[in-house]
Amino acid sequence: MAELKELTSRSVDYSQWYQDLVIKADLAENSAVRGCMVIKPYGYAIWEKMQAELDRMFKETGHQNAYFPLLIPKSFLSKEADHVEGFAKECAVVTHYRLKASPDGKGVVVDPAAKLEEELIIRPTSETIIWNTYKNWIQSYRDLPILINQWANVVRWEMRTRLFLRTAEFLWQEGHTAHATEKEALVETRQMLDVYATFAENFMAMPVVKGIKSANERFAGAVETFCIEALMQDGKALQAGTSHFLGQNFAKAFDVTFSSKEGTRDYVWATSWGVSTRLIGGLIMCHSDDNGLVLPPKLAPYQVVIVPIYRNEEQLNQIDAKVAELAAKLRALGVSVKYDNSDNKKPGWKFAEYELKGVPVRLALGARDLENGTIEVARRDTLTKETLPIDNIEQHIKTLLDEIQANIYAKAANYRASVTREVNSYDEFKVEIEKGGFLLCHWDGTTETEERIKAETKATIRCIPLEGDKTPGSCMVTGKPSAQRVVFARAY
Amino acid sequence: MAELKELTSRSVDYSQWYQDLVIKADLAENSAVRGCMVIKPYGYAIWEKMQAELDRMFKETGHQNAYFPLLIPKSFLSKEADHVEGFAKECAVVTHYRLKASPDGKGVVVDPAAKLEEELIIRPTSETIIWNTYKNWIQSYRDLPILINQWANVVRWEMRTRLFLRTAEFLWQEGHTAHATEKEALVETRQMLDVYATFAENFMAMPVVKGIKSANERFAGAVETFCIEALMQDGKALQAGTSHFLGQNFAKAFDVTFSSKEGTRDYVWATSWGVSTRLIGGLIMCHSDDNGLVLPPKLAPYQVVIVPIYRNEEQLNQIDAKVAELAAKLRALGVSVKYDNSDNKKPGWKFAEYELKGVPVRLALGARDLENGTIEVARRDTLTKETLPIDNIEQHIKTLLDEIQANIYAKAANYRASVTREVNSYDEFKVEIEKGGFLLCHWDGTTETEERIKAETKATIRCIPLEGDKTPGSCMVTGKPSAQRVVFARAY
Repeated sequence: MAELKELTSRSVDYSQWYQDLVIKADLAENSAVRGCMVIKPYGYAIWEKMQAELDRMFKETGHQNAYFPLLIPKSFLSKEADHVEGFAKECAVVTHYRLKASPDGKGVVVDPAAKLEEELIIRPTSETIIWNTYKNWIQSYRDLPILINQWANVVRWEMRTRLFLRTAEFLWQEGHTAHATEKEALVETRQMLDVYATFAENFMAMPVVKGIKSANERFAGAVETFCIEALMQDGKALQAGTSHFLGQNFAKAFDVTFSSKEGTRDYVWATSWGVSTRLIGGLIMCHSDDNGLVLPPKLAPYQVVIVPIYRNEEQLNQIDAKVAELAAKLRALGVSVKYDNSDNKKPGWKFAEYELKGVPVRLALGARDLENGTIEVARRDTLTKETLPIDNIEQHIKTLLDEIQANIYAKAANYRASVTREVNSYDEFKVEIEKGGFLLCHWDGTTETEERIKAETKATIRCIPLEGDKTPGSCMVTGKPSAQRVVFARAY
Repeated sequence: MAELKELTSRSVDYSQWYQDLVIKADLAENSAVRGCMVIKPYGYAIWEKMQAELDRMFKETGHQNAYFPLLIPKSFLSKEADHVEGFAKECAVVTHYRLKASPDGKGVVVDPAAKLEEELIIRPTSETIIWNTYKNWIQSYRDLPILINQWANVVRWEMRTRLFLRTAEFLWQEGHTAHATEKEALVETRQMLDVYATFAENFMAMPVVKGIKSANERFAGAVETFCIEALMQDGKALQAGTSHFLGQNFAKAFDVTFSSKEGTRDYVWATSWGVSTRLIGGLIMCHSDDNGLVLPPKLAPYQVVIVPIYRNEEQLNQIDAKVAELAAKLRALGVSVKYDNSDNKKPGWKFAEYELKGVPVRLALGARDLENGTIEVARRDTLTKETLPIDNIEQHIKTLLDEIQANIYAKAANYRASVTREVNSYDEFKVEIEKGGFLLCHWDGTTETEERIKAETKATIRCIPLEGDKTPGSCMVTGKPSAQRVVFARAY
């Protein structure tokens, strides 16, 4: 139990706290392959919950899933100039297709005779292979729109990695759509941004700012990148999802045209959009505390854990019977339940374990509760507990889960509000950025100014927000005109 | 419409029929990368149905999902002697992690400065990376069993590829379990074989023989490989799933030991088991006909398609209203429905299209049907149709879907029975093998005899069946003793 609790406190070292928590809550660990993680069953169960909700939302908005190759011919990458510029430096390259016995008899070596004519890249993202495929699918406006999503793994050879937040291989979904008109593609880009924002807020209980990336932070190959930006408890921002309007860039690179209703031959318009296992990192950093994970009920692998308190087998049998009834009632209400009556751990150990694992509601049932018709109900979010009559407790718990979901969101939203402020001078900015949070500032719209600020303060423009105050002003650095305040922060 | 129907007939060229069908039914296509396929939305929807059922069955038997790295250090592969022997010759090898601008200014080249110290292999299967991970998870018998499954992509550099059946990259699931005792691991191996057989028969409507592989056909690194073998309509066999008892081979290779209840230090026992997108190929070849796909209702992306027959918009509006009612009733019964009232295709085109796509039930509703209170019901499996009263038709359809599922299975089982026969001499065998089907023969149990038969007839031992006649006899080739008849066939 002591070992379980040994989380570094957030105030001492936030980064170490995060690392400790991911490991101790059994979410993931580093693998033998540099920068690649093993996602353990409890972490993967959260990803499955995320996938299920997102997949439902994608299908409700008319998308279908498909699957494209992992490997991309090197030449494809070069076809879109910005794209290759953005990804070439972090590509895993397959050069051979066979090993052979080592001449010294120890192990295997790459067989030099099995060299590929053209090297293959492990996809860092799939625009190029997909647009090369769409070329054959699209002749006429009747073939449009194409609304496809892919669940896949991708590899980007990152030098500094951190579990979930930045790993060489990660899991994600990437939507790739093709449209007959610019307008339709723009509507799609915004629609998927809204899907992501809804998912982040309603399921992850993580408030986000929707906005547009500056040119500097734009996806390599996009005309415009929309994003949702979240704020972590240490005051740093996390880009949680992006939706790109790709214009006709990839259609031009891969020569994808269609005959329009009007009989003209036009390039196809494109979007792409993605979220990844990085969201799990965001979920952790947004809500969890020094005792462990705090999971929103809608994404918790199980929402309720029940722990029996007993002195002997007779008591355990009675509790088992009562719990069977209660669990059935909870499941009938759509609540997921784990009953931990394992004999080799004490209740105190179990309490600590499920606290660490962020189970939203813990119920404890003892012999005295059976006599009194009561049950102990503990909330993970507030760490409070109370003893309540067991009759109709399932209804109470159902409501309580909604309350916890709302409370976690409110807490995160309040925190964000408390560290979001307008800053009007660059001197003030340099002081304020050290305290973390979102700084709303006027900026002259130039990459030059943005890069100067980044170099001097490590802060970046997280986004030009779509909603909120749009009053023009003067850039805090250059004094030049600014159309509206933008969001600055230091970011993961 | 003519184009849609242009499938090569099975009797003319079975292999071409298969290729045509996969392409024309929009299931998959070859990609720009040699041997890698694009799984199109309709094909992927079948895979999603398969995944959902299998995933449920895995979880019901106590397994959890997790995710391990795509890339495996080359040295891991060499640790188990048979394993590396089996996979080294078909490995995609990552040697570099960066590209750079080409000196001639055209495109990108591999950056020689970014050479990996140790090459990485794209997983052809994950035993090695997983057992290297399990090593750190297992100390005591209390840490066992570990019951994990992974949904993933794998790459095996196959020289001759065929859509779904054999591709360089494919999607699959791989279960990897760790146990304290040999007995428990054997029970697990058999349990998962049974899960696969149940899935094949109850969902794919594809009868299978459960059996043991001969040493020659065993998985590289296994002590015993169990399999399910199916029979395609051309009389060739398809290995549809395998479940391996790995003994302590991988535990020894990666030094994974545990302290037992009795206080001894023992090597851990292992199993692994997998099925892949190859199953889609099996599904197609088991049931489909010269008109297109025939899908079992339990795996069809949609089970019912409704086509309106109308002369004008007024009629269409009336039909739309009636269909909305009917579709709601069908969905309430758990039946998936597509209503195709698209205006740019004629009913005849739609009929052919959904026949090609294997939708189990097609309903057609016209103006006269509305007057008469009738609807036309067409079955894909028998290609029969009848006009029935529309009242309570939803109940009829629900029952009909079960009937179709059963009929497809029965048809496949009857076919298999008709081409499964005992053969007692090698001369007879050489004649019979040309006709296809399963040949039940006595074999002396030696690799030598098996390889001779393979070299001379292209037939392999599909399995030593677990069920059925166990009468001993004499090998048809050598006359030496045989414990029981085994199943021979030519195979995919």
